[in-house]
Amino acid sequence: MLSIMATEPDFTVDTLGKAKIPSPITYSTVEGDAIASYVRDDERVLYDIEADVQGESKAYTPAQLLQKAGPRQKIYFSPSHVHAAIVTCGGLCPGLNDVIRAITRCLWYRYGVHRISGVRYGYQGFLPEQNIPTMELNPTVVDDIHKIGGTVLGSSRGGGDQTEAIVDTIERMNVNMLFAIGGDGTQKGALSIAEEIERRGLKISVIGVPKTIDNDLAFIQRSFGFETAVAEATGTVSSAHTEAHSAINGIGLVKLMGRDSGFIAAHTALASHEANFVLIPEVRFELDGPNGLLEHLKKRLERSGHAVVIVAEGAGQELITASDLTDASGNRKLADIGVYLKGQITSYFKKIGMSVNLKYIDPSYIIRSAVAAPTDSLYCSRLGNNAAHAAMSGKTKIIISQVNNVFVHVPIQMVVSTPNRVDPESSLWRDVIESTHQPLTMTNE
Amino acid sequence: MLSIMATEPDFTVDTLGKAKIPSPITYSTVEGDAIASYVRDDERVLYDIEADVQGESKAYTPAQLLQKAGPRQKIYFSPSHVHAAIVTCGGLCPGLNDVIRAITRCLWYRYGVHRISGVRYGYQGFLPEQNIPTMELNPTVVDDIHKIGGTVLGSSRGGGDQTEAIVDTIERMNVNMLFAIGGDGTQKGALSIAEEIERRGLKISVIGVPKTIDNDLAFIQRSFGFETAVAEATGTVSSAHTEAHSAINGIGLVKLMGRDSGFIAAHTALASHEANFVLIPEVRFELDGPNGLLEHLKKRLERSGHAVVIVAEGAGQELITASDLTDASGNRKLADIGVYLKGQITSYFKKIGMSVNLKYIDPSYIIRSAVAAPTDSLYCSRLGNNAAHAAMSGKTKIIISQVNNVFVHVPIQMVVSTPNRVDPESSLWRDVIESTHQPLTMTNE
Amino acid sequence: MLSIMATEPDFTVDTLGKAKIPSPITYSTVEGDAIASYVRDDERVLYDIEADVQGESKAYTPAQLLQKAGPRQKIYFSPSHVHAAIVTCGGLCPGLNDVIRAITRCLWYRYGVHRISGVRYGYQGFLPEQNIPTMELNPTVVDDIHKIGGTVLGSSRGGGDQTEAIVDTIERMNVNMLFAIGGDGTQKGALSIAEEIERRGLKISVIGVPKTIDNDLAFIQRSFGFETAVAEATGTVSSAHTEAHSAINGIGLVKLMGRDSGFIAAHTALASHEANFVLIPEVRFELDGPNGLLEHLKKRLERSGHAVVIVAEGAGQELITASDLTDASGNRKLADIGVYLKGQITSYFKKIGMSVNLKYIDPSYIIRSAVAAPTDSLYCSRLGNNAAHAAMSGKTKIIISQVNNVFVHVPIQMVVSTPNRVDPESSLWRDVIESTHQPLTMTNE
Amino acid sequence: MLSIMATEPDFTVDTLGKAKIPSPITYSTVEGDAIASYVRDDERVLYDIEADVQGESKAYTPAQLLQKAGPRQKIYFSPSHVHAAIVTCGGLCPGLNDVIRAITRCLWYRYGVHRISGVRYGYQGFLPEQNIPTMELNPTVVDDIHKIGGTVLGSSRGGGDQTEAIVDTIERMNVNMLFAIGGDGTQKGALSIAEEIERRGLKISVIGVPKTIDNDLAFIQRSFGFETAVAEATGTVSSAHTEAHSAINGIGLVKLMGRDSGFIAAHTALASHEANFVLIPEVRFELDGPNGLLEHLKKRLERSGHAVVIVAEGAGQELITASDLTDASGNRKLADIGVYLKGQITSYFKKIGMSVNLKYIDPSYIIRSAVAAPTDSLYCSRLGNNAAHAAMSGKTKIIISQVNNVFVHVPIQMVVSTPNRVDPESSLWRDVIESTHQPLTMTNE
Repeated sequence: MLSIMATEPDFTVDTLGKAKIPSPITYSTVEGDAIASYVRDDERVLYDIEADVQGESKAYTPAQLLQKAGPRQKIYFSPSHVHAAIVTCGGLCPGLNDVIRAITRCLWYRYGVHRISGVRYGYQGFLPEQNIPTMELNPTVVDDIHKIGGTVLGSSRGGGDQTEAIVDTIERMNVNMLFAIGGDGTQKGALSIAEEIERRGLKISVIGVPKTIDNDLAFIQRSFGFETAVAEATGTVSSAHTEAHSAINGIGLVKLMGRDSGFIAAHTALASHEANFVLIPEVRFELDGPNGLLEHLKKRLERSGHAVVIVAEGAGQELITASDLTDASGNRKLADIGVYLKGQITSYFKKIGMSVNLKYIDPSYIIRSAVAAPTDSLYCSRLGNNAAHAAMSGKTKIIISQVNNVFVHVPIQMVVSTPNRVDPESSLWRDVIESTHQPLTMTNE
Repeated sequence: MLSIMATEPDFTVDTLGKAKIPSPITYSTVEGDAIASYVRDDERVLYDIEADVQGESKAYTPAQLLQKAGPRQKIYFSPSHVHAAIVTCGGLCPGLNDVIRAITRCLWYRYGVHRISGVRYGYQGFLPEQNIPTMELNPTVVDDIHKIGGTVLGSSRGGGDQTEAIVDTIERMNVNMLFAIGGDGTQKGALSIAEEIERRGLKISVIGVPKTIDNDLAFIQRSFGFETAVAEATGTVSSAHTEAHSAINGIGLVKLMGRDSGFIAAHTALASHEANFVLIPEVRFELDGPNGLLEHLKKRLERSGHAVVIVAEGAGQELITASDLTDASGNRKLADIGVYLKGQITSYFKKIGMSVNLKYIDPSYIIRSAVAAPTDSLYCSRLGNNAAHAAMSGKTKIIISQVNNVFVHVPIQMVVSTPNRVDPESSLWRDVIESTHQPLTMTNE
Repeated sequence: MLSIMATEPDFTVDTLGKAKIPSPITYSTVEGDAIASYVRDDERVLYDIEADVQGESKAYTPAQLLQKAGPRQKIYFSPSHVHAAIVTCGGLCPGLNDVIRAITRCLWYRYGVHRISGVRYGYQGFLPEQNIPTMELNPTVVDDIHKIGGTVLGSSRGGGDQTEAIVDTIERMNVNMLFAIGGDGTQKGALSIAEEIERRGLKISVIGVPKTIDNDLAFIQRSFGFETAVAEATGTVSSAHTEAHSAINGIGLVKLMGRDSGFIAAHTALASHEANFVLIPEVRFELDGPNGLLEHLKKRLERSGHAVVIVAEGAGQELITASDLTDASGNRKLADIGVYLKGQITSYFKKIGMSVNLKYIDPSYIIRSAVAAPTDSLYCSRLGNNAAHAAMSGKTKIIISQVNNVFVHVPIQMVVSTPNRVDPESSLWRDVIESTHQPLTMTNE
Repeated sequence: MLSIMATEPDFTVDTLGKAKIPSPITYSTVEGDAIASYVRDDERVLYDIEADVQGESKAYTPAQLLQKAGPRQKIYFSPSHVHAAIVTCGGLCPGLNDVIRAITRCLWYRYGVHRISGVRYGYQGFLPEQNIPTMELNPTVVDDIHKIGGTVLGSSRGGGDQTEAIVDTIERMNVNMLFAIGGDGTQKGALSIAEEIERRGLKISVIGVPKTIDNDLAFIQRSFGFETAVAEATGTVSSAHTEAHSAINGIGLVKLMGRDSGFIAAHTALASHEANFVLIPEVRFELDGPNGLLEHLKKRLERSGHAVVIVAEGAGQELITASDLTDASGNRKLADIGVYLKGQITSYFKKIGMSVNLKYIDPSYIIRSAVAAPTDSLYCSRLGNNAAHAAMSGKTKIIISQVNNVFVHVPIQMVVSTPNRVDPESSLWRDVIESTHQPLTMTNE
């Protein structure tokens, strides 16, 4: 006998009030009639699926279960009263336009909502001093936007901390539904906005669609754009491999995104089958010494005549900060590990008198600006649909996510307080080691 | 208080015997040391994650939990005694070569297994009367095979029922590890082979890697090649849409794979954003009458001037069989729903005097022969690694799968006895309806 | 001493009258100042470049030289009086939207023409009984159309013979500039229209942009969309090769476009490197006998175990017509050589008791609807620019072409009266033979 | 009456001696029999096709005509005595493997030459001190190499000046046929090698296949890999455009290849339709002043909110050298115009107090390492075939080129002494201006 252990997260979903209005969408309420159905608020899925053979029976509280996303039979907002606003924040990510398109179309066609405003250039677009007009969104405007990269609304970083000014604008616009598409900072901003809305006693739904090309947000099984990013990055590694392979002692060095987590680097290594070393923020490595990267790189060259190294931008930061990165005022500067490694590798091989050909590739914008690949695009459209359903039914302070392959509502609070990292003991990292044949550790302890 | 309900499947994994040999792969046995770890046999994951808010506490038996895949600390086979055989069966599917490559490399590099035979052209390659030599597999041979479509081993349909002859050959070859990559029929064949092996008292591990481009096998969250297939199919729908859009009353009709399930059709509709009607085996539809497809198609043309229809090959079979498909001897012929629909649509619009331009596309082989897209390729390599680990540790009669995002061992028996179908009440089908705006039902009852 | 032989074509270009209005575009008139220049009417290029070492000196008439296309210093039409019409006819071809976009943008931005009408669905759009409104074209409308396949104007076949009705409409619309984008039939129609215009004493410029995905028009070095078509077709041949290679005695049979000429088939064979037999309309072949296709195919299978056959749709018509293709009324039906070959190959191998696996692919619409590849897209935009310049300077009854890598004006009369065919004695066909290793001839004489 | 003016180039082709051996390839010698034919040495094409309407009759010398490439009826080398060597030099370029493959296959299958050595890592591979073994080339080795980028032989820069050492090695290897695939420096090296061979009285054919991704060699209508490079570069410009379009005052800056010529930059601008400014080495521009780039860029941002700038790496060098690029010893350093422009643009807008978002992309290796696109691949295979034919018939000191769409032999001497540049008065540059709407000049004189 064994049990499934409860976990601590509290997945309770906030609502603006009781949903009383019959949905204009006709679905079935009968289970088993083979007709598409509404989703009930009490349909849940388990978050934690780990178990072991021995164990005890265990009970659950509703707070430990995730609420399923989807269209409700009763909705909170009357469609004719809705003024929805959509905003995209932060760096570009494949699929932004797909999400905008899906929200707009679901609201318009399924619910009959005809006032949808695109707020331009991120949270900046809410600030009165910027004086940026909104963009009217409707099915005609969004019809083909999934075929282009970037975001038709424009984006920018920052501004999310000016909560009061933003809520002032939201009030002035009579917006009662805000869709915030963005990463950790954006969702923190959305939470502050929702809390300020609550303080003012307003009935405005705030729904997040989490955007994290690095996949570093928790409770998000798969971040939109991630697969496209890996596919694009794989092409870059292939370029690096071709260059390395065509030169005497060729070294291809590719810097990929991943400030805090190495998911893109790890997946790209697996997808390309051509990387020999993958360096990520979660796994410490040293350059020098018998078990350091440089020595292993040298051995690899001696063995095969070429090598490919992938480095996530957040990897090995501690190697640089010590000596290289304090500026005149003593501030910590952002360390570019790619350029740093390029220099270190070059001088190491110079020092030991081994001639190498290093080619360094930093594809950042090429990846970020890509059009979403088909399976990413379909994922985005499903996220967008569910975001529209959530807002219409009066949910708030949640993001839309997929967990254990089910679309669910996750409280923003949960998402912004728990980071997602590559676990060096996970099967993912193990498969990276099996694919690259890199040493289990590259430190000299 | 609520509980997670137990389900009935029995996920107990068979083994050839006790694994006593220390693995040649060095992983950590310490949890929390941030070093990649072995997987223990008692690490499990929950299969059924559905819950609702009300409920009771519930206990589990080990048989209701899925065993995690991965490298074990102790293995069953001595690497130097291993002779592995790999066979690919049935229709082509993107990723076959990626799986072959991963199994070969994992056995070779991680375990030091140096006798790996590729059995050619499916189970036919085991039959002595075919007299087809095997292909020696090693890292050099498989190095670049993931860059080409199809299978380097060749494939064929059938032959899997000649169990005795196959096991005779396996015995003759001294194979003690068989990897069978194929669909439902192939896995049924593998199970028979494994049972015959058992009857003969042999110690041969039989591991399946499930291949189902249609995604119609159960306990398989994601079938390899499926994403690539959807991406390719999306391109075809885009062609159909372009043709339809450029003609007066243009109709683009695309037949996609899916004999028994409409997963490719449904996902492709979502990914392309350009389909207006999706017809799948799981959802009955009628052609005639006020709520039939033809009437709805007519309305769509009147409204928009063009339309795109996706039909899965197994859809609407009952429409044809009645009158069209009994041959001279009274046998049931295979009904080509694509050609049938093309004819029905054409004659309907001729009858009502409406001029239409129908373009019919059947991309079958173009999809099947595609090279695996990067994220599919990485998935294949992880399936292959886990298959190699499973065999080395003496597991048998299982397939490698991913369930709730964890790689697991699933008894072949479970997989071949439960089909996977699009649930018309699922969020997938609902999202198809939201994307296409097709009627909830197209029958006249 | 030798000379270049004159050829007979008469390349004299028609004009509506003297171009007297200064162009609103500022270019240089000074040669050698390193600033982009106008083109003069007397700038010409030689058409026939063939020579041999022995020969005589020879003189040329202006009619034997091609007039260069490009912006003139003086134009015929006052931009504010221009009403331009653009029409696209016949089957789809990659690049149609690129041409429409370039004409529109060049007229609008360079000349200040603001009345541009897109005539919808080919010549049908001119017929009053069809009652199809035109589409207003301007830079906003055309901005992104090059990113999608097909034609935003729609297209259709036929209608071009209703010359009087079309010119009536042109008069009624006050159109004084017609751009006809289409193939042989379309250009014949354009010529009739221009002649009728002349008869009526109207001053309307008729400019053709030749569209021939098959590349079967003369005096057109490179037809737009052709490279994209070859690239797409190459993908299909790769699919066929993958299927053939993965089966026992696999045969991949691909039917490609080419009613009268085998350019796509020949180029695709060269680009794919995977075809073993290429069958085109220009080279007769037999099926039976010791030097027939079937015997050679058998030998190829015996040697290599698989084979790929490319057949242009117009190849081998004489094989079929005899017995298979006369319908009840004795009319000649269109022979589908692909389906015919599939049948013949299958029954041949059945007859000789050799088991083969034939996979037949007919990718037609997938090729026609493709988005223009980058180098095709740039070619289209240059064709469109030159078409706009030609019309503004009062040229008429010409098409825009590239000959010997120079954009030129070619009288429509010349183009429609001379077909372009693959010369079996050319270096192109020789390279096909060197690539495929197919026999020099496949007849039994 | 007019004439075609003779030009001065001397296209006389060198041969090792009289070709007396009947070719093992069977082609027709009869013109008009519709069977692929040999090419005769006296088949020529005209190089200069420019003409104008007035003129005089003119006679030609054979030296002013280009000799056609292709298989000869009589060959110089007995296939069984041939030892061919292939070398690839300089930076990577799409299509290198395609050329290697075609030469190898043509020699092997058409002529029966079975000794073909791949010299590794450029001319370095000939130097005894490097001690790099050659790679045996045959159809099996080269079968799939066109599917990967780079060069299977490896490449390197330099070494071509060590003529004597190289010819020593060639003699030692008994090589009698050298194929040198590379750019200007490589062909200069090949010429020196051929001259040294001549001095030593050896009978060794030296054939060049010109590789210039920048398209900056004369008498080469189209350099292989160029179209692929433009296609790849177009993707990068699209990324820059997406980034620019998604930001407030976004500027996308892309540096493309082109040390001495702006062909890639110009073609990419035309193909992408998204560039607003194109800066190339051949057209001088200033940064400051009322007609400088910065002022125009500012106006563009004020008008449209975003801008895309393409800069060829050799553009604007004179802007930098003055102050920025003399190092400690007073030497001229290589000026990186991309990084320089990025800095200048950023500080300009900072100075005038206008907030912009500049994204800089330098895709170099991604372009160079690309797999040849289908139409490039077919071009490479035809170049390779013709190179093999040329060598077999005893031609030497020539490169294979396509001029006026005909494959020809051009003396290496001609190619290395005449550079190819974008003519600012050409239709190409004019079309760039029409596409970008950039000012005709950006200097303040």
